[in-house]
Amino acid sequence: MTTFPHRHILGTETLSPADLTTILDLGDRFMEIADRPIKKVPTLRGKTVVNLFLEPSTRTRTSFEIAAKRLSADAINISGAASSTVKGETLLDTARNLDAMAPDVVVIRHAQAGSAAMLAGRIAAAVVNAGDGAHEHPTQALLDCSTIRAHKGRIEGLDIAICGDIRHSRVARSDIWALTKLGARVRVAGPRTLLAPGLGEMGAAVHDRIEPALEGADVVIMLRIQTERMGAGLFPNTREYSRYFGLNDRRLGLAKRDAIVMHPGPINRGVEIEPSVADSPRAVILDQVARGVAIRMAVLYLLAGGEAAAE
Amino acid sequence: MTTFPHRHILGTETLSPADLTTILDLGDRFMEIADRPIKKVPTLRGKTVVNLFLEPSTRTRTSFEIAAKRLSADAINISGAASSTVKGETLLDTARNLDAMAPDVVVIRHAQAGSAAMLAGRIAAAVVNAGDGAHEHPTQALLDCSTIRAHKGRIEGLDIAICGDIRHSRVARSDIWALTKLGARVRVAGPRTLLAPGLGEMGAAVHDRIEPALEGADVVIMLRIQTERMGAGLFPNTREYSRYFGLNDRRLGLAKRDAIVMHPGPINRGVEIEPSVADSPRAVILDQVARGVAIRMAVLYLLAGGEAAAE
Amino acid sequence: MTTFPHRHILGTETLSPADLTTILDLGDRFMEIADRPIKKVPTLRGKTVVNLFLEPSTRTRTSFEIAAKRLSADAINISGAASSTVKGETLLDTARNLDAMAPDVVVIRHAQAGSAAMLAGRIAAAVVNAGDGAHEHPTQALLDCSTIRAHKGRIEGLDIAICGDIRHSRVARSDIWALTKLGARVRVAGPRTLLAPGLGEMGAAVHDRIEPALEGADVVIMLRIQTERMGAGLFPNTREYSRYFGLNDRRLGLAKRDAIVMHPGPINRGVEIEPSVADSPRAVILDQVARGVAIRMAVLYLLAGGEAAAE
Repeated sequence: MTTFPHRHILGTETLSPADLTTILDLGDRFMEIADRPIKKVPTLRGKTVVNLFLEPSTRTRTSFEIAAKRLSADAINISGAASSTVKGETLLDTARNLDAMAPDVVVIRHAQAGSAAMLAGRIAAAVVNAGDGAHEHPTQALLDCSTIRAHKGRIEGLDIAICGDIRHSRVARSDIWALTKLGARVRVAGPRTLLAPGLGEMGAAVHDRIEPALEGADVVIMLRIQTERMGAGLFPNTREYSRYFGLNDRRLGLAKRDAIVMHPGPINRGVEIEPSVADSPRAVILDQVARGVAIRMAVLYLLAGGEAAAE
Repeated sequence: MTTFPHRHILGTETLSPADLTTILDLGDRFMEIADRPIKKVPTLRGKTVVNLFLEPSTRTRTSFEIAAKRLSADAINISGAASSTVKGETLLDTARNLDAMAPDVVVIRHAQAGSAAMLAGRIAAAVVNAGDGAHEHPTQALLDCSTIRAHKGRIEGLDIAICGDIRHSRVARSDIWALTKLGARVRVAGPRTLLAPGLGEMGAAVHDRIEPALEGADVVIMLRIQTERMGAGLFPNTREYSRYFGLNDRRLGLAKRDAIVMHPGPINRGVEIEPSVADSPRAVILDQVARGVAIRMAVLYLLAGGEAAAE
Repeated sequence: MTTFPHRHILGTETLSPADLTTILDLGDRFMEIADRPIKKVPTLRGKTVVNLFLEPSTRTRTSFEIAAKRLSADAINISGAASSTVKGETLLDTARNLDAMAPDVVVIRHAQAGSAAMLAGRIAAAVVNAGDGAHEHPTQALLDCSTIRAHKGRIEGLDIAICGDIRHSRVARSDIWALTKLGARVRVAGPRTLLAPGLGEMGAAVHDRIEPALEGADVVIMLRIQTERMGAGLFPNTREYSRYFGLNDRRLGLAKRDAIVMHPGPINRGVEIEPSVADSPRAVILDQVARGVAIRMAVLYLLAGGEAAAE
């Protein structure tokens, strides 16, 4: 029987190393289900998972939906455009309404930092944060940890570089919390306009050039550049960005020989990552996606009646 | 074995008191499924429910989808924007096409009054009207009746106020038919521009101020103000509206001490209802939502082979 | 045990007469499932079917979704607007990402000819082409063949007219390949601006008037006119089009007495087909839709582990 002390997954900041490890271990066990001829277990039959995605998303929503269905839960998708939030209803009212339909888990993506935490405890369902503004995206960090552990055998003691638009990245924040708790040394690198205050206090070494972050790294996590940010004057253009911060073979040579390359996707080929790197055997980007389904199965399992189900 | 004499649920106007009671009783029985650890019964396994929503909706579509899945039916969602009705196909052709795929129930929301009735009998599937223009929204009325019965123990003899934009409200029309058939006395109140002819013949007392409608009421049903109607000159602005027709604590004091407050949602806080009322224990708005799932389970059960399933 | 030599269904051009017959026979067997009280078989339980529709579609997506669910597979819908392809990701990256979530079948509709074939073999899942630009739409051709065989008892030796916008029609191309392989004689007819080079080499007789194509035909397949093409100057207006190429009772009189009329839908009443023809007993348009579900069940069954399932 698994004991897990949380009713919600709001961020990795509030998860202990033991919590993280519980989820990672369970995720490893769920990995093999995707290889079975019948990729489905009855564990969460009769449970309802609502995917409330009030920001556009394909891959994360699909990953949660597949995770729910492989556990035999019913998955209900609600996307932003169709939502009654457009009719002026508050997020809390929307969530309380859904909650009255007795879902077991509400997975929420929302543009506002803190939105998932605001709902937790105010509704009866368990809440999973699938991305709240630039704040956290804990299941992404968990699948990153899962991928690193699978390829490196451990997380403790590794040197991990996170490069790109740190400032707007909930992935970076969730990764830093999770990786440092599990004993990794994290360095972040990005243009000064795309760094953020407080990264040092989170435990990361901060660089405004990519080279020192890459040097001797075991793992390189490249972040997506959101080209819509260019208009805001935060960086000149994608060619300039690529020239100074794009990951190419030469730069990757600074990292350890067996360093792996990760990316939360979708990737901008030729901007933050060169095709030759993205398609090389060192890139484990698709393995991240595969592990994402298993991690989300683990999270749904733990929150939607793991104990009852395990009896 | 339940006997139910209708193949379609098109409106409460065409349901007898006995029909209404059959659905309400069955809804009560389905309520407890939401409290089970495994919220699913195999009753409608192998049945197909199509949610054809040609007007935007989150909560009603979600409610029908959850209802279908809790009965183990397959739910197929089709929304307006994606529909081939945008390619110039008639609604009847769209529905006949879907019908050829052998659904058991087609749940339809459409901007045109009479659209659900038009399809009934022209397609093989049972038809449920989930809102046709300003005409009817019978499952909303049924869940309103269910909520009133649960809180008041009966409907007969109650004084029920329906307040707001009566003219454009399919909820008001369906409520008036259902509540008067079940023996309630209904009063409606709204600005003159938002009242409609014929309300008196439907059996409702009509007021152009909210106070006399509230006086001594057992139940207060507030309707949503669609702010997009303001442009049409039907009422001056939301502040004015709120001042004369919004439900606040003072006005609610006119109703019976134990009066309950209902709203079909989504609510405009501070417009038709003050937060202090919406969040008070007298508001049973979320209970309405919970009962909505049970009522829709009852309707789907009765139309999609209740007898066969009950054997 | 069924033996089927293909891992993907990309077009009818690459299917042999024996392949086509295997699918048609299996489709016939799946037809009766829609008549059962419980329209569901456990054949593909634990399989995942992704419907990746990057062009708008209601009926084809719904048909595949119902087919998947009637076989007990999990169906995941991804539509164009919500897709991360809008974030600049390549189609191959999108597909590889989905593929990492271990779907068994990816059904793809995409505006680009060749897109389905591009993915086949580059991802682990089986690929079904649900329409790639003006190239192929093989399951539509298969359901057309299924409908013809059901009504005429055979395909070999029949005279089949395909009329309308041949040039932009993936349905016409897939139909010509399939029908000629199965021994039919195909004539196509359309305004010169809506014909295409190479139709003769595909085995079709080409006419720029509809009358000679209809004369003595056993089957008349009318194609949808996409009114958005009018702006491109390819034909003057819908009234002119209807006058010269619309199927009315008089023109249908040129065909055999027992000729059937087909259309892939959605139909433009009064443009390519008169209501009196569309609603006559000779029109088998809705039967095409019904057979579409059965054909898609057959295709999913063959690609997603038919052998294993049949054991």
